[in-house]
Amino acid sequence: MVDYIGMGGIQRLVARVGPAAFIEGLTREIDADYRRWAEFDKSARHAIHSPGGVIELMPTSDARLYSFKYVNGHPKNTNVGLLTVTAFGVLADVHTGYPVLLSEMTVTTALRTAAMSALAARHLARPDSRVMALIGNGAQSEFQALAFAHMLGIQTFQLYDVDPAATDKLARNLTALGLHFTRCASIAQAVRGADIVTTVTADKCNATILTPDMITPGMHLNAVGGDCPGKTELHADILRRPDARVFVEYEPQSRLEGEIQQMPADFPVTELACVLNGSAPGRSSPRDVTIFDSVGFALEDYSALRYLHQLQTAQPTHEQIDLIPVLGDPKNLFAVLHNANVTPPPAALLPSETVSKKSLPA
Amino acid sequence: MVDYIGMGGIQRLVARVGPAAFIEGLTREIDADYRRWAEFDKSARHAIHSPGGVIELMPTSDARLYSFKYVNGHPKNTNVGLLTVTAFGVLADVHTGYPVLLSEMTVTTALRTAAMSALAARHLARPDSRVMALIGNGAQSEFQALAFAHMLGIQTFQLYDVDPAATDKLARNLTALGLHFTRCASIAQAVRGADIVTTVTADKCNATILTPDMITPGMHLNAVGGDCPGKTELHADILRRPDARVFVEYEPQSRLEGEIQQMPADFPVTELACVLNGSAPGRSSPRDVTIFDSVGFALEDYSALRYLHQLQTAQPTHEQIDLIPVLGDPKNLFAVLHNANVTPPPAALLPSETVSKKSLPA
Repeated sequence: MVDYIGMGGIQRLVARVGPAAFIEGLTREIDADYRRWAEFDKSARHAIHSPGGVIELMPTSDARLYSFKYVNGHPKNTNVGLLTVTAFGVLADVHTGYPVLLSEMTVTTALRTAAMSALAARHLARPDSRVMALIGNGAQSEFQALAFAHMLGIQTFQLYDVDPAATDKLARNLTALGLHFTRCASIAQAVRGADIVTTVTADKCNATILTPDMITPGMHLNAVGGDCPGKTELHADILRRPDARVFVEYEPQSRLEGEIQQMPADFPVTELACVLNGSAPGRSSPRDVTIFDSVGFALEDYSALRYLHQLQTAQPTHEQIDLIPVLGDPKNLFAVLHNANVTPPPAALLPSETVSKKSLPA
Repeated sequence: MVDYIGMGGIQRLVARVGPAAFIEGLTREIDADYRRWAEFDKSARHAIHSPGGVIELMPTSDARLYSFKYVNGHPKNTNVGLLTVTAFGVLADVHTGYPVLLSEMTVTTALRTAAMSALAARHLARPDSRVMALIGNGAQSEFQALAFAHMLGIQTFQLYDVDPAATDKLARNLTALGLHFTRCASIAQAVRGADIVTTVTADKCNATILTPDMITPGMHLNAVGGDCPGKTELHADILRRPDARVFVEYEPQSRLEGEIQQMPADFPVTELACVLNGSAPGRSSPRDVTIFDSVGFALEDYSALRYLHQLQTAQPTHEQIDLIPVLGDPKNLFAVLHNANVTPPPAALLPSETVSKKSLPA
């Protein structure tokens, strides 16, 4: 039996602590894991690209726990009522290789991306930041707004999206959350006067969401949407500014996928882990232009799965699925088929409650 | 909602057709997919090694379907009542990136490995083969025996394992299957007189299960257990025999993981796909020593998941899990948390039956 968090499970877990507190708790876990950066087995994620999008696998591991996430990115999905990004992930025990948790990560990816953005901004944005531009008002935008309002003290969000319906939706959700915002007619208008600029756009192309003329000294750019080869959001001249300093998650992956794919291989960047563990400075002057060239790294998912499992197992009951056999004799796997029965799980694993699992006509 | 096959599901699916017919059906699917080898995105699997074992991800894709498998290999697990290998996998729609099936693959990996071994042997073993040595009598051994009895006409199995209890277990299962066997006191005795030698041992080391003196002209070696860097079963001099011909699944992965990791990078091998599609010969003489240096490739799991999904969706009902959200507005992911309700699935997806999913005390 493997612990399971589906859509019902994530709703219950997040509702129990509240979305803002959940993001803040997750930020603490990500922070703690990034501080022990050297302990992790790291690699650029595995991606298979197709004309409509990309499907990725993101594994990492320390000596105790292994995790991976499956995630897709298909920007045209929203045209047919589907999500651009869906995801799920698994946490496993390195000692036995057994999976211990299978969890939804569509919602969790949005939560952890917001947590990572807020964590970076705490070290890179000016502490007096109060206004954030939010370019791209799709599935991730509320999560970013909530994290930056709650953890950075952002008081006003300046919204822009090419799709006015997306901004309508974000505006409704921000109103319900009690967050203050203004709708803008252009990217330039949204960026004007912002202390922090967050870009969360989805198009799979070399876009120039932000151009050099929009950027003023002291800004922090939280560039979330450019996360694939051929998928960027910043004009390269922004990266070339003499006052710009670029921070990444895992450099080998970001060279392939981040804004810095536009730059030469020796373009200087700082891994965020070095800032978090104190071995490199974050923002060094109120006039620096800091750029968090975020693409999403496997360690954030590791932290999220670890955090989810911790919250789940603190509850009196939780869901499980029969993904892995439990055998009396582990060398007698064939008994599963031949005798058509499996040794029942040990007493400690006996179900205390039955939750419905759905079947449907083929 | 994502289609789901757990332990209960795989038992029901295999019971419906019978294990031998299941393996034969799966062999047909693997054969068909290997014949269109060039259509697949291929890469060596991603592996993270630890002192106790390895955890691997095995993705592949064609233009229509994507699959990956999670699989571990922890040889010491059986000492504590756990399986050496557990696995699960996912089939996804390339067009949308959505996962469509999550399935157990612990049992399925044993079935597909046996199917692949039988498929290779049909092209590489002498057609008059009647005796097979089976070295390593653990979790996979019954599956190999069943496949070779049913599909190759093997009439006698000569068994050996360092653990006599494993051979006891295999002997019981072969008796129940009505298969004829002899127990042997050594590897050399088991191999003597065999037309086919199958090695399915688990130790993570450079073992020499088979030595050159045991091999006679005309034999087919089905070397299944050597499948990791530093994990081999054949003495290198067997590969160096002038009459030996070595066949592999995906050459770049086999160079890292197979028996041929012992050989120079230019050691000649033939990819099995070339034999299946007719562009390279299989066995060319009754005196060839053919070696299937099997490590397991992602395409076999792709075929297995495709086959499972086909069998599953042909049934009147099947299980699903709520791994992926269904939203009225795909850009309003936050609604999952903020309103704590999700748009119900469309009518076609409504459950027709409820199957128990278990919860347990934390």
